[in-house]
Formats: sequence, C-alpha cells, structure tokens
Amino acid sequence: MSEFAAGPAGRIERVRALMAGRGYDAIVVRDEANLRWLTGVKGVFDYTFEFPHAAFITADQCLFHTDSRYLNSFEENTPAGSPWVYDMDEGTIPGWVAGKISANKCRVCAVEDDMQINFYQGIQRGLEDRSVACVLPLMHDDIRKMRAIKDAEEIELMRHAQSITDAAFQHMLGFIKPGMTEKQVRNELENFMFANGADSLAFGSIVASGPNTANPHAVPSDRVIEKGDFVLMDYGAGYCDYRSDMTRTVVMGEPTQEQLDLYALVRRTHEECVAAIHPGVEGNDIFKLSKKIIGDAGYGDYYNHGLGHGVGIDIHELPNFNRSKNIIEVGSVITMEPGVYLPGVGGVRLEDYGVVAENGYEPFTKTPHDLHVIDC
Amino acid sequence: MSEFAAGPAGRIERVRALMAGRGYDAIVVRDEANLRWLTGVKGVFDYTFEFPHAAFITADQCLFHTDSRYLNSFEENTPAGSPWVYDMDEGTIPGWVAGKISANKCRVCAVEDDMQINFYQGIQRGLEDRSVACVLPLMHDDIRKMRAIKDAEEIELMRHAQSITDAAFQHMLGFIKPGMTEKQVRNELENFMFANGADSLAFGSIVASGPNTANPHAVPSDRVIEKGDFVLMDYGAGYCDYRSDMTRTVVMGEPTQEQLDLYALVRRTHEECVAAIHPGVEGNDIFKLSKKIIGDAGYGDYYNHGLGHGVGIDIHELPNFNRSKNIIEVGSVITMEPGVYLPGVGGVRLEDYGVVAENGYEPFTKTPHDLHVIDC
Repeated sequence: MSEFAAGPAGRIERVRALMAGRGYDAIVVRDEANLRWLTGVKGVFDYTFEFPHAAFITADQCLFHTDSRYLNSFEENTPAGSPWVYDMDEGTIPGWVAGKISANKCRVCAVEDDMQINFYQGIQRGLEDRSVACVLPLMHDDIRKMRAIKDAEEIELMRHAQSITDAAFQHMLGFIKPGMTEKQVRNELENFMFANGADSLAFGSIVASGPNTANPHAVPSDRVIEKGDFVLMDYGAGYCDYRSDMTRTVVMGEPTQEQLDLYALVRRTHEECVAAIHPGVEGNDIFKLSKKIIGDAGYGDYYNHGLGHGVGIDIHELPNFNRSKNIIEVGSVITMEPGVYLPGVGGVRLEDYGVVAENGYEPFTKTPHDLHVIDC
Repeated sequence: MSEFAAGPAGRIERVRALMAGRGYDAIVVRDEANLRWLTGVKGVFDYTFEFPHAAFITADQCLFHTDSRYLNSFEENTPAGSPWVYDMDEGTIPGWVAGKISANKCRVCAVEDDMQINFYQGIQRGLEDRSVACVLPLMHDDIRKMRAIKDAEEIELMRHAQSITDAAFQHMLGFIKPGMTEKQVRNELENFMFANGADSLAFGSIVASGPNTANPHAVPSDRVIEKGDFVLMDYGAGYCDYRSDMTRTVVMGEPTQEQLDLYALVRRTHEECVAAIHPGVEGNDIFKLSKKIIGDAGYGDYYNHGLGHGVGIDIHELPNFNRSKNIIEVGSVITMEPGVYLPGVGGVRLEDYGVVAENGYEPFTKTPHDLHVIDC
C-alpha cells in the first residue's frame, strides 16, 4: 500500500515529498495532464497547445493561474476540500510565476523539462526584473512517473471508458457492410461512443480497410470496404479526462487461410505476452518476447511499432514496453498491442488495455480475441 | 502581390529569405502546424503533444524526420515536386538534428522559441558529443507571422470548412427541441459535420443552454434544454487540416425583451466592428471599439474575452484583435466574436470568420445574423 492517500490530496503529498527530498522550495506545472491529476478537476481542461494554465506549488500553497474563459468552470468543478486557490492576475503567466517566487523567497523552483523555452525564459526575465535570484532546475518526468501508478478512482474511470468502447465494437459488428467507406464507419463509431456517454474521443479513431490496414497509423479515407477485406479499428472513448484504447481487426466474409494464419499469429503473440506480465518485470523483456514470437514465424520485418504503452489522462503515458528500464508495477495501466503489417496485403493488430495486479494483467477490455467475421 | 509563389514551394522560399537575412545556416521546425504549412501534406499530421516529427531546412535541403507509424502516409500524401526528403534515422530526434548540423557544418541553426527545453538541450548535448560548435538562436513567431497571410488554396479550404459548418447550423435549427440535453445537441452537431465531409472537429464544440450560456467556455453538460432558454453553439469543422469557427445563439420559443435587447447589442457590436475593418488597421483599435459599444450600453463588466483571432491550421493564429501591434492585413483570416454574459441569466455570442480583402472583411460564414427562434 502507498503511504499516501488516494486522490488529489495524496498526489500533492507525494509531490511535496519529492520537493522536500530534492530541496525544491517550489515547483511550476504547466502540462495539462499533470494539472488534471494534481487538481482532480474533471472535464474542464481542454488539452490544447495553448497551455492556458500554470500551477505554483510550495510546501504550504497550491496556486493555480488561469484566465476568464475557465475560471468559473474550475470553481464549479473543484472537489470539496481542495487546497487549490485560483488566480487570474492580469500580467503574463511567467510574470505571475516570477512574482510568486519572489513573494515566497524561493531559492530553488523546479519546472517540467518539456516546458516551452519562451515560458522558461519569461520566468528568468521576471526574476531579473525583480532582482531576485532563484535557480530553476528541470524535473525529468517526475510527475509522469507518479501518474504511472493509478489509484482506484482512476481505474474505475478507465473501466467505464472501456465499457463504452466495448459496446461500440458490438454495435459496429452489426453496422459494417461492404460498400461503406472507412469514413462512414469512423463516423458511426464515434457517434455511438458520444451517444453512449463518452465525453471525448481518446484520440482520432483509426478505421482502415483492405490494403490500408498495412499502415499502422492509417487515417480513415474514402476507400470503399469490400468483401474479403480486413477492417481494423483502433479507437477509444474519453471519460472524465481518462482514456481507453482498443484495436480489433475484423474480416468481411469468410477469411482466407492467409488471413487466418496472420490473425492467429498476432493473437498468440498478444496472449503469450499477457501471460508473461507480472509485477516487477522489465517492460522491454515483454517487448523482446513479442519480437521473438513474430520473428520466429518469419514476420520480423513486418512488426515495426511498440508493443504497448501506459494510458491514463494522456493516451501515451508511462510505463511502456519498448524502452529499457520501464518496470511494470502493480497499478500500471498499459496496452498490449502487437501487430503484423504486410505491405500491399493488409495488417492485423489486436489491442486490449488493462491494469497490472499482483496476479498479472487484468484487461479492462471485455471484447473477446476471436476473429470476428462480418457476414456478407 | 507577394514576391513568392503560392503553396509550399513559395513558403519555403519565404523561410529561406528570412534565413538569409538573419544569417541562419539552418532552422529546425517542430510545431506540427508549421510543418503542415511548410510541407503541404494533407491529413497526416495529428497534432498531439508528442511532437513526433522534426524538419531541418538549409539553403538547399528540406529534411523531415518521422517514424515508422507515419512514413508511408507522408510519402503517399506529399504533393508532386515537393523538395522534402523523409528520414527515419534510428537514434533520437535531437541527435538526428545534431548530426545534420554537423554534416552541414552549420554555425547558426535557429529553432522555434516554443520548443521544449529537453529537446533543445538534446540538440546541445548532441553537438557536444560531436565536438561541434553551433549557436541555436530562438525565432519568435517568425513562421506563425508568415502563416497569418493566407493564400488562395488555404482560403478555399477554409471556405469549404465553413460551408460544412453553416450546413450543420441549418440542420440543428430543425433538430433542437426542449427536453434534449446539451450533450445530445453536441453529438448531433458533430455527427452531422463528419457525415458531411469534415475530417475532424475544429475544436471540442461548445453547446451551452440557459444559465450555462453565461460561461464563455462552457463544456456541454447533461442540462436539459427548456423553453425560454438561449442555446449557444460555438463550433467548427476541420477540413484538410484547416479549421472553421462560428458561434450562433438561438432562443427556444419567443424571446423576452431582455433577450432581444442583449442579442441586438451583441449583433450591433459585431456589425459595427466588421464595418471598421480595413487593411492596415490596428487590431487593438477594433477591440477598443467593441469595448466602447458594449461599455456604453452598460454591459462593460460582462464582456470578458477577446474580440477575435486568426484561424488557419491552428484554431488560434495570428493576428488577433486583442493585443497591440497586430496589424490586420489583406489575406488575414480572423474571427469576429463579441459576446455579453450575465451570470445567472445567460449570454450571447455572435461569431463569423472571414478574410480581410482590399475592401474590408469578407465573411466565409453565410448564416445570417438574425436571432433564430426555435419553435416550441
């Protein structure tokens, strides 16, 4: 069990423990997913490239800078007992940060290492204007690493997002027909998720058919789906800022032996890798296992992406299976998504996502792994 | 007339003219909207926070680094005659940049000022590893400023995006009924746009009703729409990576005199500001005019956002009306969106978008400004 409480209060305690350990007087947070996690405010962040907010955390204050477009929404959606105080100071946001550093006599204020350079320099200029000295060290994924272990509420939100995603797949099995375009399928899929409780899409859905399935990151096109095609759908729902992620590849009418073999290989890879997951395993070892299974079958050149990634507020979070030194721990929520893609022919990917428990991987995904054959 | 050709070739010429003027041997571009503009590649960029690409431009090369998820799609969607060469070097992207700087013996390589610090430091480390000296000055919105003036193809894409947006509004007039929730209205609106040719949403649609319309940045909720409500829809379609943006406020049944007066004030503000737009005007002077009209009517405290912003590949581009030193030039595409918001009562916003021409503002928006009354 964690020594910290669940929910935003415990998250802030955890951040403050890190600050104390490192000797940070304050930290500045700009990443909206980090801010969502630290505030617990649902449904207000919009994850644009505009970075409209900033948080300033010290040992005894949690200050949040936003603007008039958002202030009401934050105030209405802040959980009871929250330590966060909102501010809408008129000047620039870096100037506001510099002012808080000065007012709190901070000597060390850490920032995220993916902060934009102009924002960082804006803080430095604000400190110079105030004749204040403060070092601004970079944190390297510290908050993201904390976010990699999910609490019960987060898991519940993701299970719910996946239930919408599973229901959408069932719906699509009865909807897809030869003669429809990939875009028509995409539209129905996304519309179903919104009509069934999704707040947002987890990401722009991939719907690919026929030879387009050989492109792992295909964009839905006007291609008309034909009898004999694979149709690959990689999509998910957003619910209270948390995301789901699932891929299924179906076949239009009776599959060929080649299609059956390809599907069986990907399914076997998926299931053997799932069986190998246990708390404490190196993610990269699971990735190597997937490479070995697919390579031994002679398709090593046709599996050219990662095996899976953490999911939460962001669609790609820590840990992942592909880079070394990613230990898979209890509470990690991670996708499992091997695929094989034959240029000009087609591809198969089979993706679930779920949480790592003491006994292994517990998928949130309830849709079976069998190859779904669409009657036509 | 510009001295540069229309389209991506002319855009690269323009960037190279800037480079020559500043003495840059190379520039690095990471922002996906800038990359979309410089490459002319449609429908492949996905505008995530992951920044999967980087471009390296010298006086005679246009190199583009991507990964295996995207490479096929770029190659298939690159316009004929493009100077871009794709690369999928295995190492890190900052390492790739450092290698190109070294190979080209660059001494000055400029980067965008909103680059992430860790990427910038990655380039510096890569240069140190190679014992290479190169200064890395920051460009301040230089490419964004170029993007503020749209060419004929860009305007055509945006006119098309707006035609989908106008059609969606007409559709919604016949759809919205008392008893529906804001989310149901949002779902129908977005589904209509996708079914009628939108590739994406311009942004997460705002649908607000009754007192929620007093919140300029409202998130669609489960609130049930009632007779007598204002319903505000602020939304747009994405088409070939370009966006539209429109707001209309409708009323459910016969409006009260207070609703009529509020609407008339916002409409008058909109139209008087449009009439004041001409090439060369300071955007801020138009903003001040809108403040004066609304202030003189006694509602100065209830208009707390900007008057409008440029639109293109990003939903918020240059120029805008709110900050000083934004000159409105021929070819600027900009929204006009005054609003008045009475807490607890409701709000009205009326937004068109269009292009600045020699004779003034030409809206892409074809939906009339009259208050639309939904029979109920």
